Amino acid sequence: MNYSSILEQIQKDIQPYFGKGKVADYIPALANVNPKKFGMSIHTIKGNVFEIGDSKELFSIQSISKVFTLALAMTLEKDSIWKRVGREPSGSKFNSLVQLEHENGIPRNPFINAGAHVITDILTSHFENPKAEILNFVNKLAKSKVSFDEILAQSERETGNRNLAMGYFMKSFGNIHNQVRVVLDVYFNQCSIAMSCLNLSKSLLFLANDGVAPSTGERIISKRNSDRINALMLTCGMYDYVGEFAYSVGLPSKSGVGGGIIAIVPGEMAICVWSPELSDSGNSYIGTKALELFVNYTGKTIF
Amino acid sequence: MNYSSILEQIQKDIQPYFGKGKVADYIPALANVNPKKFGMSIHTIKGNVFEIGDSKELFSIQSISKVFTLALAMTLEKDSIWKRVGREPSGSKFNSLVQLEHENGIPRNPFINAGAHVITDILTSHFENPKAEILNFVNKLAKSKVSFDEILAQSERETGNRNLAMGYFMKSFGNIHNQVRVVLDVYFNQCSIAMSCLNLSKSLLFLANDGVAPSTGERIISKRNSDRINALMLTCGMYDYVGEFAYSVGLPSKSGVGGGIIAIVPGEMAICVWSPELSDSGNSYIGTKALELFVNYTGKTIF
Amino acid sequence: MNYSSILEQIQKDIQPYFGKGKVADYIPALANVNPKKFGMSIHTIKGNVFEIGDSKELFSIQSISKVFTLALAMTLEKDSIWKRVGREPSGSKFNSLVQLEHENGIPRNPFINAGAHVITDILTSHFENPKAEILNFVNKLAKSKVSFDEILAQSERETGNRNLAMGYFMKSFGNIHNQVRVVLDVYFNQCSIAMSCLNLSKSLLFLANDGVAPSTGERIISKRNSDRINALMLTCGMYDYVGEFAYSVGLPSKSGVGGGIIAIVPGEMAICVWSPELSDSGNSYIGTKALELFVNYTGKTIF
Amino acid sequence: MNYSSILEQIQKDIQPYFGKGKVADYIPALANVNPKKFGMSIHTIKGNVFEIGDSKELFSIQSISKVFTLALAMTLEKDSIWKRVGREPSGSKFNSLVQLEHENGIPRNPFINAGAHVITDILTSHFENPKAEILNFVNKLAKSKVSFDEILAQSERETGNRNLAMGYFMKSFGNIHNQVRVVLDVYFNQCSIAMSCLNLSKSLLFLANDGVAPSTGERIISKRNSDRINALMLTCGMYDYVGEFAYSVGLPSKSGVGGGIIAIVPGEMAICVWSPELSDSGNSYIGTKALELFVNYTGKTIF
Repeated sequence: MNYSSILEQIQKDIQPYFGKGKVADYIPALANVNPKKFGMSIHTIKGNVFEIGDSKELFSIQSISKVFTLALAMTLEKDSIWKRVGREPSGSKFNSLVQLEHENGIPRNPFINAGAHVITDILTSHFENPKAEILNFVNKLAKSKVSFDEILAQSERETGNRNLAMGYFMKSFGNIHNQVRVVLDVYFNQCSIAMSCLNLSKSLLFLANDGVAPSTGERIISKRNSDRINALMLTCGMYDYVGEFAYSVGLPSKSGVGGGIIAIVPGEMAICVWSPELSDSGNSYIGTKALELFVNYTGKTIF
Repeated sequence: MNYSSILEQIQKDIQPYFGKGKVADYIPALANVNPKKFGMSIHTIKGNVFEIGDSKELFSIQSISKVFTLALAMTLEKDSIWKRVGREPSGSKFNSLVQLEHENGIPRNPFINAGAHVITDILTSHFENPKAEILNFVNKLAKSKVSFDEILAQSERETGNRNLAMGYFMKSFGNIHNQVRVVLDVYFNQCSIAMSCLNLSKSLLFLANDGVAPSTGERIISKRNSDRINALMLTCGMYDYVGEFAYSVGLPSKSGVGGGIIAIVPGEMAICVWSPELSDSGNSYIGTKALELFVNYTGKTIF
Repeated sequence: MNYSSILEQIQKDIQPYFGKGKVADYIPALANVNPKKFGMSIHTIKGNVFEIGDSKELFSIQSISKVFTLALAMTLEKDSIWKRVGREPSGSKFNSLVQLEHENGIPRNPFINAGAHVITDILTSHFENPKAEILNFVNKLAKSKVSFDEILAQSERETGNRNLAMGYFMKSFGNIHNQVRVVLDVYFNQCSIAMSCLNLSKSLLFLANDGVAPSTGERIISKRNSDRINALMLTCGMYDYVGEFAYSVGLPSKSGVGGGIIAIVPGEMAICVWSPELSDSGNSYIGTKALELFVNYTGKTIF
Repeated sequence: MNYSSILEQIQKDIQPYFGKGKVADYIPALANVNPKKFGMSIHTIKGNVFEIGDSKELFSIQSISKVFTLALAMTLEKDSIWKRVGREPSGSKFNSLVQLEHENGIPRNPFINAGAHVITDILTSHFENPKAEILNFVNKLAKSKVSFDEILAQSERETGNRNLAMGYFMKSFGNIHNQVRVVLDVYFNQCSIAMSCLNLSKSLLFLANDGVAPSTGERIISKRNSDRINALMLTCGMYDYVGEFAYSVGLPSKSGVGGGIIAIVPGEMAICVWSPELSDSGNSYIGTKALELFVNYTGKTIF
């Protein structure tokens, strides 16, 4: 069965699962998305592209942005990053403050919110205009002009009390160097980036190719760092569902509350799936199912 | 560079690291081991064997036994296991009771002590003589007669107050079905099994070969379950160092306080390394270094 | 209004509250008690006695026994007690193990279960026959022959997995000196002591009289220790309801899951109330109401 | 021995203890206080005043302000307060966020920082100019013109990241109704109020007199609420040292990091002691000693 047929089969298989998750509703801009959407795309390192459904439709990448900002930060700093953020699964909710209190304001990993704040703080220290630099980095990878959804970013800003709490809490430990509001301003913008499945599987394909973008041959990061980002995605990328996801899918992945999930098959391909309904764990319900089906049909796990 | 040369190089490279860890000392039988020991072995699915140092010397496998008991339990029960034990990284120490209290006596995963107790409880319910069955299972995989270290097991029994606490705590939630002392008696015996690096890399090679022991062609578990055990090893196998280990080594692995670590390169080989000095995280200090070096020399991570 | 009239009024006032709590049901011996029971008694230091309802009926004193054992331990040891048990409110459930893990096996106070185990361990170290000595101490105070309910004690022993977990957990930190099963054997017996309201208000009257039993003039403990036990009752005596209870009643008190509550009005009287239905906090629902009414009618709080 | 002699004796007795605590140093305005200061004053409800040492010198009342704001809030709202803040000892540090996360943004009591924020939020909702109203309330009680230390308040504002974290965290649960920065602006001002021992023992004497200011006969709050504030002070007023303090002193008390402690002897007097060096628990080291000595000399505990 080729990948086109597999995507078609997956699209059929997931139909009964619509209506069982719940679209993120804490801000109107996310709540208003059509819950019936489903798109999936594959970019292989050999240059093949497969897609199905709403794979060209833009959605809010939300926490998937944490992969871009981490990769960008790793091009700017070396091990100094890991003095300010850990590399361990959190064992608790993505927006928990408990762990920060017990561990002196050092977030467990760069994919929980607090850890992503620290990464964005690092970018804010390095760049005069961190928003523009993040966008440039994503544009370069996507080979297309992506943009912030300013209305959505503003909406997050207005309801972002818990993110503010985290930011000030870490600042009280000295682990945010810039002004909290400045860092969160950048953070809410990065989360609001609008991309399609095709944009994302193309952009993050370098993680399946030892750090090199296959279409241009440009090295984005070192092989070692590419491996490491994949490792972090596997151990920390799916909120407090990483163990289950590794067990049932077994691919380095990162999800966002916009309903997107990016998954990497090292040495082969990047897969993006999007469907807005979320499971209790905050991951796309149908996106998770689709990736399970993909693994069942292809046997492609990293294990 | 072939694997023999790589092992030789690793043996040289790790010399400066002796003396930086600390041998487990909570029971005399472990404390009395020579801290200078180092052995490493590789079994490939094609039938090649490479080894160096003290690779034939027996040591106490301790928590590596949790891989054997989990695999055995998965041959006996299906998803019912996962109603009694989770599949998520714990985010805390391997012998913590806090998580059990917050999550109604359901351990986070089968590789922390509490989770291993539940797995052993399952075996105790299935088998009239669970100790003998565990030994038979390991013997079959190792193709050699392994045995319990009864003195060590007795020593653990006498100092095992925290394991007793865990057992009774889970029993208070109804998650241990047999008598706590009976389950722990089996548990301390399984931990005391004495094996060499060569024994272990041979025994667990089926996890690198989709569940089939390559030498005999016998299917030990299904491909899906083999993948799943590897996934659990990667997300939960190295105590509260799983994230760091995935980041720096990137292979499904399980360690024991006896100083052993087993690592799986899916589709290729099983590697076992042994050196008794432990880092703060409870994993073999030099064993971890050796596996990092192996990955640096070969590029073989799952990412 | 004299105390007889007040007790009569209280008995009327509490009638509508029956049926709103829940009798402890984890062991048959407690579950089989008639939930409609209500007794209340007052012993004043001047020698007056007032009583109403089922004030002569025996019930299981359960955690009220912790006051007797603490007082007895304070006659045997001085500040050494407080190296092994704290004097702070716990902020969590009476049978929580979380705090023990975070604080190296030192229980927060002598009135949570873990703390009471340590006190009983102290008595077990001091006495050849701790059960008999505890009974003697209570008999002397009650001026009547009280006894253990051996069937109830046995029943607790059989279901006491959480208490065993606590005991072994503390032993793993070195904070239980005798065998866990020996200490808990004594503990379950002390909890099973059967007394009436009249027995209890008579026995503990010395805490209202600076440590001296008024009827005999015998000094049981020093004034300073009498004050201190009252202080501990106020800050730690009502499970995780101490703050509410201090706010609404304002008397040093200790409750048990048998439905009894002892309350001290320093310089004046000891009050005992019994009614088996418990609120969510594990304190007698109607007993708490009765004491609130008593304070409303008399204005007697310590504040 | 009369109170004047007792104060003289206490002043002698505490001399050896200077230098054993540590002045609060997180803001310059507090760090610059002379650590050798010691003042103590007693106001009795019969109108007598006793004082010694630096009893007329102004210091920053800090958390003692929480007694004033709670009393003021209790004149404005009834039980609705207790839907937004608990009445239980916290069992953890005064500025912990852990408990807030576990209990949906409801602080344990009004004397930890988070609870005081909620009380100040209530005042902010009721008053157009909450700062002025707080000052008026204190002025009325002190019968003298007290004022904010604006420099100190500004200094706290600049270092108050943890308080901001708490505020935004509670707002994320809907438990702060006004803007976080507005509430904290008031909060930092109330903490900065400068008063002397004499000011404080006079102001809070109504808590020793069933809610009535003895000098004017004005009822400040009801007897019931006066009792209740005393109860809250006893169970929650001394940070995570309440149990120890109840055990060793046994008087309803509230301390501040400026080194002041107010203690109430119900029906008799209010005592204020000030000495800037703090113990690990954040309470005045010498102030605590002085109150212990007072109780030893007079026997006046509430127990």
